Amino acid sequence: MLNFDFYNPTQILFGQGQIAAITPLVPAGARVLMLYGGGSIKRNGVYDEVKAALSGHTVFEFAGIEPNPHFETLMQAVELVKAEKIDFLLAVGGGSVIDGTKFVAAAVQHDGDPWLILEKGGKTITSAMPFGAVLTLPATGSEMNAASVITRAATQQKRAFMHRAVFPKFSVLDPAKTFTLPLRQVGNGVVDAFVHTMEQYMTYPADAPLQDRWAEGILQTLIEQGPRTLAEPENIGVRANIMWCATMALNGIIGVGVPQDWATHMIGHELTALYGLDHAQTLAVVLPGILTVRKDAKRAKLLQYAARVWNITEGGEETRIAQAIERTRGFFEQMGVKTRLSGYNLGQEAIDAVVARLVEHRMVKLGEHRDIDADASRAALQISL
Amino acid sequence: MLNFDFYNPTQILFGQGQIAAITPLVPAGARVLMLYGGGSIKRNGVYDEVKAALSGHTVFEFAGIEPNPHFETLMQAVELVKAEKIDFLLAVGGGSVIDGTKFVAAAVQHDGDPWLILEKGGKTITSAMPFGAVLTLPATGSEMNAASVITRAATQQKRAFMHRAVFPKFSVLDPAKTFTLPLRQVGNGVVDAFVHTMEQYMTYPADAPLQDRWAEGILQTLIEQGPRTLAEPENIGVRANIMWCATMALNGIIGVGVPQDWATHMIGHELTALYGLDHAQTLAVVLPGILTVRKDAKRAKLLQYAARVWNITEGGEETRIAQAIERTRGFFEQMGVKTRLSGYNLGQEAIDAVVARLVEHRMVKLGEHRDIDADASRAALQISL
Repeated sequence: MLNFDFYNPTQILFGQGQIAAITPLVPAGARVLMLYGGGSIKRNGVYDEVKAALSGHTVFEFAGIEPNPHFETLMQAVELVKAEKIDFLLAVGGGSVIDGTKFVAAAVQHDGDPWLILEKGGKTITSAMPFGAVLTLPATGSEMNAASVITRAATQQKRAFMHRAVFPKFSVLDPAKTFTLPLRQVGNGVVDAFVHTMEQYMTYPADAPLQDRWAEGILQTLIEQGPRTLAEPENIGVRANIMWCATMALNGIIGVGVPQDWATHMIGHELTALYGLDHAQTLAVVLPGILTVRKDAKRAKLLQYAARVWNITEGGEETRIAQAIERTRGFFEQMGVKTRLSGYNLGQEAIDAVVARLVEHRMVKLGEHRDIDADASRAALQISL
Repeated sequence: MLNFDFYNPTQILFGQGQIAAITPLVPAGARVLMLYGGGSIKRNGVYDEVKAALSGHTVFEFAGIEPNPHFETLMQAVELVKAEKIDFLLAVGGGSVIDGTKFVAAAVQHDGDPWLILEKGGKTITSAMPFGAVLTLPATGSEMNAASVITRAATQQKRAFMHRAVFPKFSVLDPAKTFTLPLRQVGNGVVDAFVHTMEQYMTYPADAPLQDRWAEGILQTLIEQGPRTLAEPENIGVRANIMWCATMALNGIIGVGVPQDWATHMIGHELTALYGLDHAQTLAVVLPGILTVRKDAKRAKLLQYAARVWNITEGGEETRIAQAIERTRGFFEQMGVKTRLSGYNLGQEAIDAVVARLVEHRMVKLGEHRDIDADASRAALQISL
């Protein structure tokens, strides 16, 4: 196991009816800014419940945070926070709204150009405003981590930042609030959580058996519950399990003391920036290719994954690895997420364009061994043509 | 899954050499009280490393916190903290020292009789002093939770309290610092972590598959690494895995949203209070009896435990359950912890005495169904005579 420093102070209020529990967690007398996306929270009752929970506070609203939230949009929220002397932010939505709120929280207290927050990955942050979250879409894990991904629309740049000042103070996870989600978003969320887990698990053995077993536990649970949640959208128990898996997949706990990959995410970000694919769609395309291209470097873990997660124990190593990768691809398809570029009407030209951008952004030393160069990225994408 | 509220803000610094990392975490200019037990930290280098890390601070010391730490001893530390205007506490030791430090942290700021903290289980706490910990013995999980167990020597009362004000600000977990532990303490620690996990896992199905898998992951890892750590005391990888399992077993994460038992602990506490058995020794005696006595109520989980943790899948239900319980007992014995009262020179009289005290302390509605009464406790102990 590698040395590590783990810290995660976000309070999680989990279960039906928990929105009401935020009342005492928002500072008394605070001027609160609610940030959200489109109008879905007004249709599913979340908006009303949140407003009721905040009834003792002065509440402002900032709507319109888009998927892959835009720097340009969020800077408008920063201006509003300053103009209205807001004390506390409340993100109400999915990962995009929470990621965006993290950026606003940091940008308000940032000296100098706020784009530096993204350009420097969070290193220029010294403090951030306090904020909470009400999660409506289990997927990104943003509700219990200190990371955020923001897109600058003008330049199609998608950048991440991390800083311990942007952990949510609390997050409400009410699985009943996910009943009305479009199935496409539900499927995306399951794939997102699955790939987050794989990025931290599918590397090389690091003598960390508990981290391995916990990652495998998330993967097994997603495989078991994912198809059920598409078939039974209002089964609250299943939705609860999906929601908890997605949070645990990226709150840091399974990634302590182990090497991590993240090449699939870096390549996927370019696909989203260029062609607007959903984040999870890009992951579903890229991961099977990365596993295939890196099967020698990842051999020991791929065999362990085949055996423990997919129960594949017969046949030679190559066969078991190939089957495990095929099962992974099949699971994503089962969740309604296409795994080939052709499924998104993209072809060879997209591969060329993505690889060119990876080179431009110096994303040519990816993966746990920093050896996924442009050729390896190209080869991975080629497999999912 | 049941509704829950999870919160755990303790920062974990894990790995060799991490004691040095506490320097910036102790507030500048703080008057620090180091609390520890016997002299072992002076023999294994921990004391010197901690003193070096605190070299910029004014450091006071309070030594002599005993196993099953005494209220009477800790009240002397409370006086010292007040007399010397201490700002920050640093626990250096195992669970007893950390539990004791939690009590001191709360008692210093407590209005009225400090025994109320224990009498009321923490409900009278409103705040506590900040403190950190340097862990030298993986076992109790106290390094990353907000619970503490204290014994009043004068009355042989062993009482627990919990409060979110007593999470350690940080804990250092350096597995190399456990190399010199007596094997008895190492074995005790593994059994303690195992039973902590079982208390949160071995109840009834609650549609919480991830929590189940994570608990099973801890149990499997302890079973795999426990005997190795006795055989190879200076294998740092194995010690690291044991240490991480023990912390994860009782930091709250596997227990969210599921029913919990804790009868074994409640009965065990009386054995320690009356006869001075090590905490883990009492758990090793009581758990196999509880599992046997409650095998109908726990049937579904016992069968799952048999299959997933011990790979017992052949035979009828009764056979599989009996085998799983025997394997559990065998594992404790393998860790050097005796599982029968006779191993501690106790007999029928001890059962009578323990049951009398359970009645006296109103511990007659134990377990996840609150139905382990005095007769059931007696029956459980009888099985481990």
